[in-house]
Amino acid sequence: ADIVVLPGDGIGPEIVSATVPVLEAVARRFGHQFRFAEHDIGGIAIDRHGEPLPAATLEAARKADAILLGAVGGPKWSDPNATVRPEQGLLAIRKALGLFANLRPVRPHPAALGASPIKSELLAGVDIVVVRELTGGIYFGDKTRSDADATDLCRYTVAEIERVVRVAAELARQRRGHLTSVDKANVLETSRLWRDVATRVVRDEFPDVALEHQLVDSMAMHLLSKPRAYDVIVTENMFGDILTDEASMLAGSLGLLASASLGAARVGIYEPIHGSAPDIAGQGVANPYATILSAAMMLRHSLGLETEAAAVEAAVHGALDAKVFTADLAAQGAAVDTARAAAAVI
Amino acid sequence: ADIVVLPGDGIGPEIVSATVPVLEAVARRFGHQFRFAEHDIGGIAIDRHGEPLPAATLEAARKADAILLGAVGGPKWSDPNATVRPEQGLLAIRKALGLFANLRPVRPHPAALGASPIKSELLAGVDIVVVRELTGGIYFGDKTRSDADATDLCRYTVAEIERVVRVAAELARQRRGHLTSVDKANVLETSRLWRDVATRVVRDEFPDVALEHQLVDSMAMHLLSKPRAYDVIVTENMFGDILTDEASMLAGSLGLLASASLGAARVGIYEPIHGSAPDIAGQGVANPYATILSAAMMLRHSLGLETEAAAVEAAVHGALDAKVFTADLAAQGAAVDTARAAAAVI
Ligand SMILES: CC(C)[C@H](C(=O)O)[C@@H](O)C(=O)O
Ligand SMILES: CC(C)[C@H](C(=O)O)[C@@H](O)C(=O)O
Repeated sequence: ADIVVLPGDGIGPEIVSATVPVLEAVARRFGHQFRFAEHDIGGIAIDRHGEPLPAATLEAARKADAILLGAVGGPKWSDPNATVRPEQGLLAIRKALGLFANLRPVRPHPAALGASPIKSELLAGVDIVVVRELTGGIYFGDKTRSDADATDLCRYTVAEIERVVRVAAELARQRRGHLTSVDKANVLETSRLWRDVATRVVRDEFPDVALEHQLVDSMAMHLLSKPRAYDVIVTENMFGDILTDEASMLAGSLGLLASASLGAARVGIYEPIHGSAPDIAGQGVANPYATILSAAMMLRHSLGLETEAAAVEAAVHGALDAKVFTADLAAQGAAVDTARAAAAVI
Repeated sequence: ADIVVLPGDGIGPEIVSATVPVLEAVARRFGHQFRFAEHDIGGIAIDRHGEPLPAATLEAARKADAILLGAVGGPKWSDPNATVRPEQGLLAIRKALGLFANLRPVRPHPAALGASPIKSELLAGVDIVVVRELTGGIYFGDKTRSDADATDLCRYTVAEIERVVRVAAELARQRRGHLTSVDKANVLETSRLWRDVATRVVRDEFPDVALEHQLVDSMAMHLLSKPRAYDVIVTENMFGDILTDEASMLAGSLGLLASASLGAARVGIYEPIHGSAPDIAGQGVANPYATILSAAMMLRHSLGLETEAAAVEAAVHGALDAKVFTADLAAQGAAVDTARAAAAVI
């Protein structure tokens, strides 16, 4: 399999360097051949090529079986009014590859509960997957700016909603059969369309899945007060961005949250949901588990290697059980560095 | 002073009926005269007058010194595709009165910490006011719907951002001098404008206030992981809706969160941030504290009665200290009803 590696900025190169050896260990152990090719994206691509998503990167990504991504952005490129910004590379590659469904599993690990701001008794048994729509909505609508005002257009087509709801309902069917669709239908026209389409798709195509609708403001509360009540949550791009960062707090550390961005084809982007963490970049102390768990999702979703994916996940859980904690998880003093954490998984 | 009372739907009438006597007690004790006039809004207004904000209600509101509101909406009017919906009444009155700044204080009371999903040690000393922009953004932009798609336009003018940032910075100046502005400037044009305007207003007019910018997704995390780090938070309409419901979890119960919606004139709308709670409506068990604390904000902001406001707040805190808890706060079995809770405050 051909895997394109996009380290990006900040801690991106460190966590990706720690993860590639895990995939190599999988290849050795299970007799596969993975070919890795590294390309630039984000700030480093701006520095080297003048643009956040160089043509060579996109071309390699289009031909790959899967893409492993670190993180993009940093203080060096942080002026929001600059015409060229690292995040544009991330948004552009998601869009160009048609990766409309972003899966973000949230399953707090018993050994890491202490690091969560949420009371531990609420967290036992929490097992949620958020499916965030990733190539539509206000992220990609027309934008204007004048001296007097600015605008962003939020637009959703029926087809865009249908396909992401199908991915989420299919996933719910394979899990506990419960789907929560999140919108703001009491205010937004796009949300009223979202609610209608979700209702119809589930009724006609997934009669075995139980669908519930939640307003985004209530969801932001209930995610904290009764996280065990949720199985699969599906929502539009912006709401998904906010709710998954909030949900990451259930897992104790953003450093444990993996993601897969999927489309109609097999290729997907696999990346931790955390950012480039410029404050700790270059020190070799970042938590690599989210990236390693993202690589496990790659094995499952793009490479069809379920046994291998489960083995990697079990190895990460084993390392957590053994309290091999990086600084974000450890009580003061007991932390290991990135390399030691990755070695424990291998 | 002339106070317009808008009970609305669900538990609205119950919590408002419990709060008016508190204001009457204030009037007696401090020698004021409050005249109350009740009008319809929301679902009950649809039933009685065919529209969620009847002309008579708006006219009375325009002439009033302050408005006390319960809640609107309920299953009877819950079809999001209906042309007339209760929430439209709420949005319309906010807009018609120009109430652009919605203040939502979050200060967990020690006696109620047990009801919060957040670990208590993170909550001691938390004292935040969220200032939510209330009459702009995607809530009020043009909307379209066709068979194939739907759109909502998010628009902000420089003037809209300036005025709400001024309210928030002024408040920060009277408090701990720290202001956090929340946006999504790495994606939205309206957010880049928001960030530019906030930066300029604070630099030029509030050099003594420390301004920090946060992306909305990070904010959704940090609000949970380090709530003590925040003083005043200012943000646009939709982000404010989501973040304040999330922040309410810090306070243990939505039943404790008050709000004030203010504009350029003295008149304001004072309402709990919770909804109409149809599941418990009519039973007389709703928590009246959020509405009573909203009445305290009315005394302060619209009627200029700071001593009286502080007295009401102290009385609610006293009731909480004495563990006079409604069902949302009480451990099973120990709950009092709405009337008993209000009586304890009086
Ligand atoms: C960097 C940013 C554009 C991005 C997003 O908002 O999608 C990030 O927050 C994420 O969640 O992947
Ligand atoms: C009822 C709804 C329109 C309203 C809003 O979103 O503003 C409510 O959630 C609120 O926060 O006051």
